[in-house]
Amino acid sequence: MTKRNLSPTGDPWLLTPGPLTTSLTVKQAMLHDYGSRDTAFIRINREIREQLLDIIHGRDSHACVPLQGSGTFVVEAMIGTFVPAAGKLLILVNGAYGRRIVKISEYYGINHSALEWPEDQPVDVAQLEAALKADTGITHVAVVHCETTSGILNPLAVVAACVAEHGRALLIDSMSIFGATAIDAGSLRFDALAASSNKCLEGVPGMGFCLARREALQAAKGNARSLSLDLYDQWQAMEANAQWRFTPPTHCLLAFHQALAEFHEAGGVAGRGGRYRKNCDRLVSGMRALGFETLLADELQAPIIVTFHMPADPAFVFQTFYDRLRERGFVIYPGKLTVADSFRIGCIGRLDTTQIEAALEAIKALLAELGVASGAPASKQGNSI
Amino acid sequence: MTKRNLSPTGDPWLLTPGPLTTSLTVKQAMLHDYGSRDTAFIRINREIREQLLDIIHGRDSHACVPLQGSGTFVVEAMIGTFVPAAGKLLILVNGAYGRRIVKISEYYGINHSALEWPEDQPVDVAQLEAALKADTGITHVAVVHCETTSGILNPLAVVAACVAEHGRALLIDSMSIFGATAIDAGSLRFDALAASSNKCLEGVPGMGFCLARREALQAAKGNARSLSLDLYDQWQAMEANAQWRFTPPTHCLLAFHQALAEFHEAGGVAGRGGRYRKNCDRLVSGMRALGFETLLADELQAPIIVTFHMPADPAFVFQTFYDRLRERGFVIYPGKLTVADSFRIGCIGRLDTTQIEAALEAIKALLAELGVASGAPASKQGNSI
Repeated sequence: MTKRNLSPTGDPWLLTPGPLTTSLTVKQAMLHDYGSRDTAFIRINREIREQLLDIIHGRDSHACVPLQGSGTFVVEAMIGTFVPAAGKLLILVNGAYGRRIVKISEYYGINHSALEWPEDQPVDVAQLEAALKADTGITHVAVVHCETTSGILNPLAVVAACVAEHGRALLIDSMSIFGATAIDAGSLRFDALAASSNKCLEGVPGMGFCLARREALQAAKGNARSLSLDLYDQWQAMEANAQWRFTPPTHCLLAFHQALAEFHEAGGVAGRGGRYRKNCDRLVSGMRALGFETLLADELQAPIIVTFHMPADPAFVFQTFYDRLRERGFVIYPGKLTVADSFRIGCIGRLDTTQIEAALEAIKALLAELGVASGAPASKQGNSI
Repeated sequence: MTKRNLSPTGDPWLLTPGPLTTSLTVKQAMLHDYGSRDTAFIRINREIREQLLDIIHGRDSHACVPLQGSGTFVVEAMIGTFVPAAGKLLILVNGAYGRRIVKISEYYGINHSALEWPEDQPVDVAQLEAALKADTGITHVAVVHCETTSGILNPLAVVAACVAEHGRALLIDSMSIFGATAIDAGSLRFDALAASSNKCLEGVPGMGFCLARREALQAAKGNARSLSLDLYDQWQAMEANAQWRFTPPTHCLLAFHQALAEFHEAGGVAGRGGRYRKNCDRLVSGMRALGFETLLADELQAPIIVTFHMPADPAFVFQTFYDRLRERGFVIYPGKLTVADSFRIGCIGRLDTTQIEAALEAIKALLAELGVASGAPASKQGNSI
């Protein structure tokens, strides 16, 4: 009988970029039905919006606009609301989420151009600066904070400084890392940032939110290409009566409210980021001890999700590896977004090094069972530690 | 001490058009975290899509495309996906949800016109037919099945027959009544219909779905104005691997899967519609016994939500009435969408005549407490039964 490692609700641990394992108390918060125009719900909604602004120290300068749907919905809403008809968007691309912003711009017919880098390299600010100097028509720049494609952390502070210096507006997709790394609205200049309930803040999926400079949001009136995704309209309605324009995902909001309470109890950004960094470091060192190699150099690795090269050993069949690891209680990410032959393991959600250790043990036992001598990839066979 | 009537989770009963009271077992289904690409979740997702098609007997001819967000998101997605750039949309309006489709068309720059009726009158098919004859440029007609504004049921079958006879395509917003009244895809001709997890199917809010003729969906490729709201793209991705393009609201789907099981156990459309009709009839007769009068004639009233004229007695202050009724365990709808001075009480969700009786008792006691002799409205004072 295979040893199974299960979460408190009897489910496999999710080592994915999301949906992820949440605490039992976060899920239990959903055991209630609230009317969306009821006083108690309105208070919860207001507290969520205030607490999200507090994370970036932006309560005086910024506004929080939550939105129904997945993370992509709020990224699309941000692009559609902030880039005016006469604007031009420069998109910094080093992965699938940057490419998705290009696709959004195509749907909307937004004038845009893109700078692209390989998936294992961060966006380069010198090239950004050159592009901004060369094309004075560019009004907005979009960047993905942490590209889940590879797990790479882009240099947000220097990108923001460059964009500000050249007088353009910055739109940030911070989906996968918001809450696990410090963002100070006082020192980092941006017009809008999009993130979700279901990543590092450890709520359940179903909504995202945009944190925006109030002046920029005010100026965005009339830009939006979609009623449902109009963040200005959503903001105005919410400021007027603290209610959502259209039915909110009430249970998801109850869970998010509880998740934010647990986020603060556990030390906020420092606590969350610290735990994920420990998870990530342990995962990487443990996998390297088994011969696996990471796609990224350590200094580029965000503590969110790690991409490993596919082992060269023909006895390693990914689907079998995935299925048997699931039987042992760990769901890793089955999808592949990178160009490289690789797979990914996430290290976020309500888990710590105890679960990472258990996952490593399961992987070690599984390799032995499959007859895989080493996780080393083809090009580096024999070079692994 | 006021007598409080609470649901099994200790919450007030929601007598609103949604979010509504769901069963404890539906909420408990959310106590698990599932990976969105995991086999178990994929099975649940497939079963939901098949069961929704079975409700309209459309598994062979139609497709089910679920979408993240509120009901409005999927209505907007339906309009944006099915009406091509060269199309023209005629919108039948007798309430706020019809007007919302006009607004969606304005955002998208869709060529459109509207036929309007007062909120207490159903859409008139003679006028529809005249409009279709007069303007051969009209390619699509949009109708709201049950207008939550007033609670009125529009004559869907005759509208559909007229639209089909004149060779146009029909788009139906069936949000508030889907699951409580029979729709047969074999005899009712439409291109697409939008509804939600959170109305008569008694799931939690967070997603909607579109049921569409496969040929019409296939022909809609490239129409959508929004990436997130592109139902063709969502369908193609889901057919390819049974997965959602973007993070699904996994917990909401687990609840919806359970809600559909309970829907079938309770007799499907006939069972659900029958229970709501009993709730509605008891609510209307009980309120009339207290002097209240309905906005709508009985034959126009859908068994979803009932609009009552505001009482003439100056001792009746709506906010006080609402607050004290909530203290007694019943949340009615605080908002007003109608032109008429009125308020609304819903009769859907996991409740039956036991709760309706208790609500009527609470209302009766409350009127006595407030010193309101009768719920009769101004114009009809003294005429009430």
